[in-house]
Amino acid sequence: MYRYKKNESSFKKIEIMKLFLIGTGLIGGSMSKDLRNLLGNIQIHGIDKNELSVKRAKNIGVIDIIDNIENLNIADRVILSVPVSESLKILPFILDNLNKDALVWDVGSTKFSLCKSVEKHSNRDQFLATHPIAGNELSGPEASAENLFNGKIQILCEKNKTRPDLLQWAESIFNLMGMKIRYMDPEEHDKKMAIVSHLSHISSFMLGKTVMESEKNNQNILDFAGSGFESTVRLAKSSPEMWSSIFKDNRKNILEILNAYIENLKQFQLKIENENYIDLKSQMIKTNKLKKILDTIKPKN
Amino acid sequence: MYRYKKNESSFKKIEIMKLFLIGTGLIGGSMSKDLRNLLGNIQIHGIDKNELSVKRAKNIGVIDIIDNIENLNIADRVILSVPVSESLKILPFILDNLNKDALVWDVGSTKFSLCKSVEKHSNRDQFLATHPIAGNELSGPEASAENLFNGKIQILCEKNKTRPDLLQWAESIFNLMGMKIRYMDPEEHDKKMAIVSHLSHISSFMLGKTVMESEKNNQNILDFAGSGFESTVRLAKSSPEMWSSIFKDNRKNILEILNAYIENLKQFQLKIENENYIDLKSQMIKTNKLKKILDTIKPKN
Repeated sequence: MYRYKKNESSFKKIEIMKLFLIGTGLIGGSMSKDLRNLLGNIQIHGIDKNELSVKRAKNIGVIDIIDNIENLNIADRVILSVPVSESLKILPFILDNLNKDALVWDVGSTKFSLCKSVEKHSNRDQFLATHPIAGNELSGPEASAENLFNGKIQILCEKNKTRPDLLQWAESIFNLMGMKIRYMDPEEHDKKMAIVSHLSHISSFMLGKTVMESEKNNQNILDFAGSGFESTVRLAKSSPEMWSSIFKDNRKNILEILNAYIENLKQFQLKIENENYIDLKSQMIKTNKLKKILDTIKPKN
Repeated sequence: MYRYKKNESSFKKIEIMKLFLIGTGLIGGSMSKDLRNLLGNIQIHGIDKNELSVKRAKNIGVIDIIDNIENLNIADRVILSVPVSESLKILPFILDNLNKDALVWDVGSTKFSLCKSVEKHSNRDQFLATHPIAGNELSGPEASAENLFNGKIQILCEKNKTRPDLLQWAESIFNLMGMKIRYMDPEEHDKKMAIVSHLSHISSFMLGKTVMESEKNNQNILDFAGSGFESTVRLAKSSPEMWSSIFKDNRKNILEILNAYIENLKQFQLKIENENYIDLKSQMIKTNKLKKILDTIKPKN
């Protein structure tokens, strides 16, 4: 079994680290690649309920061994990178079976229900709730990439509930991946994510649906995609499996922000109906401020 | 005055061509740059009701001379690149004052009302209605760029109403710019654009508004922008002046497609409310087909 020596600044490889990757998709696959590059002496065991996916992950070298969840007791580190509905089912089992110096972290887009589900687990301190803001519309092991996390935000929730030595290891690794760590309360995290991420996905999925229903000629869609449609609809390519799970898990917050969005659209519609173009224009001028926000503020380091 | 020789395959510069650019923004500025590169011997006269904009265009060399509309009678070619509400006002005046071998083309995002407005004008055949699908969220002369149109679609409407020699010149120039020419009826054009372009802009503007209303911390918006928000909201940076004009001009088609979009969002909302995640997922799987459309179809040459 792999152990790291306390108080060492580097991760000296004294034995092979056994990393279990549960869910061999974009985020987990990318994180495994970075861990392999950073730690060198690592053996990656892949677990995925999608047999084709785990085989592809093995074929392209994301994982070394196709394994199953019964062998978790040999793991040093576990990345839980599956839809949150799955994580809710298996995280307690993982914690039941981890050896005492192992750490499991999830990388899901919602945090409240998962943290809640293990709050009383006797091994709660071997779990770290994380959300690397690095996803995109791609999925599957082929989408995984080295350095995906460089410069990205990594949100940690309830860090004080994780054992200090394990937390310290994880933070060092995330720093080495180039991530900027931020701490958030799980409830606040989910509320903010509904606003800034989950709503965008719904807006994009429904835009894609509306356009495909109204324009049956695919060549027209492609020809006109230059007019901004491609960018706006990019997220409609995202994984339905993962996103239905997020919409379920963050239902309350999403319903709230979706309602606000629909109300804004209706008001916009009413302004066009009433030919109130002055109001329409002044509202767009206000929204233009986003340009300033997105173009000028630099992330805090 | 510039004249080109008929039946010549190249554009021999026998005299300086006088190009009048009305509206010194992204599209007009970019087209002027390409024309300068392609024709060489050209003098570009800029007209803009925004005095600062036309001065900046002069300073950065997009235009050679700041001029005014009273001098249009010396123009060989005129690009009309202003919001459609402005085009509607001045196109008849332009046609009244053009010399007999001059051509004016507009580059606006809607075509029906403008074509309609000059259908009975005695000089209708000196006008060509065009829509280069090359706009982005940027505006102003500084946003103009060489080769912006390379590989992009150029839609021509009612081409048979333009004098054949002038049409031929324009098509040759657009081809030299690398554009792929398509022909559409103005009514069909506006309907399709409402679906594939104008709706995206409304969706994006309202997404930006909703997010800014709900998340007051700009740093949070920026940090989380990685989660797809930035792409989805890109169009909310677009020019309110131009877009309020488009929404007005294409009101009927936009109301129709906006209604379909709001209905789809409401149905999605209802599915989340009723916890009907199976339907939610299958709907997203259907919409995923967009990925295939956007990734695999190549534009016809």
